[in-house]
Amino acid sequence: MTIRVAIAGYGNLGRGVEAAVTNAPDMELVGIFTRRDPKLVNTATSAPSYALDDIASFANKIDVVVICGGSATDLPVQTPELAKSFTVVDSFDTHANIPAHFANVDAAAREAKTIGVISCGWDPGLFSLARLYASAALPEGADYTFWGRGVSQGHSDAIRRIPGVADARQYTVPVEAAVQAARSGSNPELTTRQKHTRECFVVAEEGADLAAIEKAIVTMPNYFADYDTTVTFISQEELNANHAGLPHGGTVIRSGRTGFNNEFADTIEFSLALDSNPFFTGSVLASVARAAYRMHEDGQVGARTMFDIPPALLSPLSAEELRAHLM
Amino acid sequence: MTIRVAIAGYGNLGRGVEAAVTNAPDMELVGIFTRRDPKLVNTATSAPSYALDDIASFANKIDVVVICGGSATDLPVQTPELAKSFTVVDSFDTHANIPAHFANVDAAAREAKTIGVISCGWDPGLFSLARLYASAALPEGADYTFWGRGVSQGHSDAIRRIPGVADARQYTVPVEAAVQAARSGSNPELTTRQKHTRECFVVAEEGADLAAIEKAIVTMPNYFADYDTTVTFISQEELNANHAGLPHGGTVIRSGRTGFNNEFADTIEFSLALDSNPFFTGSVLASVARAAYRMHEDGQVGARTMFDIPPALLSPLSAEELRAHLM
Repeated sequence: MTIRVAIAGYGNLGRGVEAAVTNAPDMELVGIFTRRDPKLVNTATSAPSYALDDIASFANKIDVVVICGGSATDLPVQTPELAKSFTVVDSFDTHANIPAHFANVDAAAREAKTIGVISCGWDPGLFSLARLYASAALPEGADYTFWGRGVSQGHSDAIRRIPGVADARQYTVPVEAAVQAARSGSNPELTTRQKHTRECFVVAEEGADLAAIEKAIVTMPNYFADYDTTVTFISQEELNANHAGLPHGGTVIRSGRTGFNNEFADTIEFSLALDSNPFFTGSVLASVARAAYRMHEDGQVGARTMFDIPPALLSPLSAEELRAHLM
Repeated sequence: MTIRVAIAGYGNLGRGVEAAVTNAPDMELVGIFTRRDPKLVNTATSAPSYALDDIASFANKIDVVVICGGSATDLPVQTPELAKSFTVVDSFDTHANIPAHFANVDAAAREAKTIGVISCGWDPGLFSLARLYASAALPEGADYTFWGRGVSQGHSDAIRRIPGVADARQYTVPVEAAVQAARSGSNPELTTRQKHTRECFVVAEEGADLAAIEKAIVTMPNYFADYDTTVTFISQEELNANHAGLPHGGTVIRSGRTGFNNEFADTIEFSLALDSNPFFTGSVLASVARAAYRMHEDGQVGARTMFDIPPALLSPLSAEELRAHLM
């Protein structure tokens, strides 16, 4: 049975899903659905592109829609809307709004008898799972999540909005001493500043006030003010040559204790080192699309997160193959 | 709702489960069921001990039985047998026999309308999950599992059976160069000998032939012959002082690629560092007992592995709490 997947939204993440679905033996890419003029969208594979407004006419041709919009304004609207007609998967990552988004998608999916899996990827996603499994195995303990070294697109965008900035790339960098402290079993309290630093590579416009740009960055509330931030001005050529990629990754550490009197110390660690954040996230979304399809085929309805998905459903291998080869 | 848990078998693992269940806010330990004379079993907590043969009379007083016998001869008999009357959890770890054990437990559990979760713990268990999630996220790639540094009780027992050996402790040690090679993205082929070494600390009986003991160890088929093995003779006092614990751990690494043409390299890593293998395994089994109870309450029947369990079921937190705090 081939799973017919559509992609809604065609930025970096959409391309990542396109690659993963195209490479999956059990999936077929129906097409890319875009708000832009579909004739102007050149897909990386031979997949056709269509207007997102026309997706309803594909009702019997799509099993799962993977929605690749942004969490700020796209997904809160698109995921509940598309869940009215399709089983859907998204990567909604505004952690504080996950309960509200879940409720909206759940209502739409229950009414339409579809499945809507939200907040898939690696954080939220695989990192969330690492936190959950580790806290279930070690109820007595503390969690630490470190991100990077990797490019934060949100922070890069924030720098680009400063007057005089032509381009920018921001790296989130975990502080090695903090990672070691988390691993040590001493359960330290770590402040935001102690856990990560931020490295900014900025291309200034000709004649811009560099000191003013630097000050605007390092004092920016929420994004940079709580961190030790370094700003390095470079040329557009250097940025293109050395900072074109979107690497990312990070580590989830749980430090906990077992025993009748908590006499034993244990550490659980899950880490990722990714050449391409959007292509890896796209690959995770493709595996969740498989699970969403299977849950829908099973007659289930409503919103889900990766917390609710039996892990075997993510794999193209059968339950028998998984038990024989991966258990 | 308090989950009433019984423990069948009271060795190191049984004590680990006893500690975890006693410390869990939503569980109650009904008792320890043993094949020994229960009057001679001194439980670490105030839990009562009973004869395993009498467990049928507890049919309405137990929600889940966690079976803590050995994989060689106990579990293949006990798990299907107890699944005829109870929802059960075991840690069956003879990887090659998992499919057969699953089939036996499945038949018993389906007929009795119980749930039987087999092969729980960390390997099989959390390491199996790491292999599954990582291979679903990175279908193109290779898996590496390293164990240790930690005590292998099976290998320690094998040494103890050699004539002239009074006591022994065997550590499995991953070769750091092999771990680095697995992490590197070069997808190396690693032989058994390249991945792990084995360190043996042996207490010889008075007047024993040390050279003969050493030769018997390092040439032992399956256990040591395929490894670089070191043998160190020490006194019983030194073994008791420095090698009394049962630490263990290890690392699962998946090195894979994403992109339209596999142009991006990614590494996923899951690792454990445990002061006490049986207490950590016991803690995982307790969390699986919670999930088994919930699946049974949900009306499900049959055999399961951790591959089949929605992760949220392992946690004492509600789905809402998990989404709000761990996602």
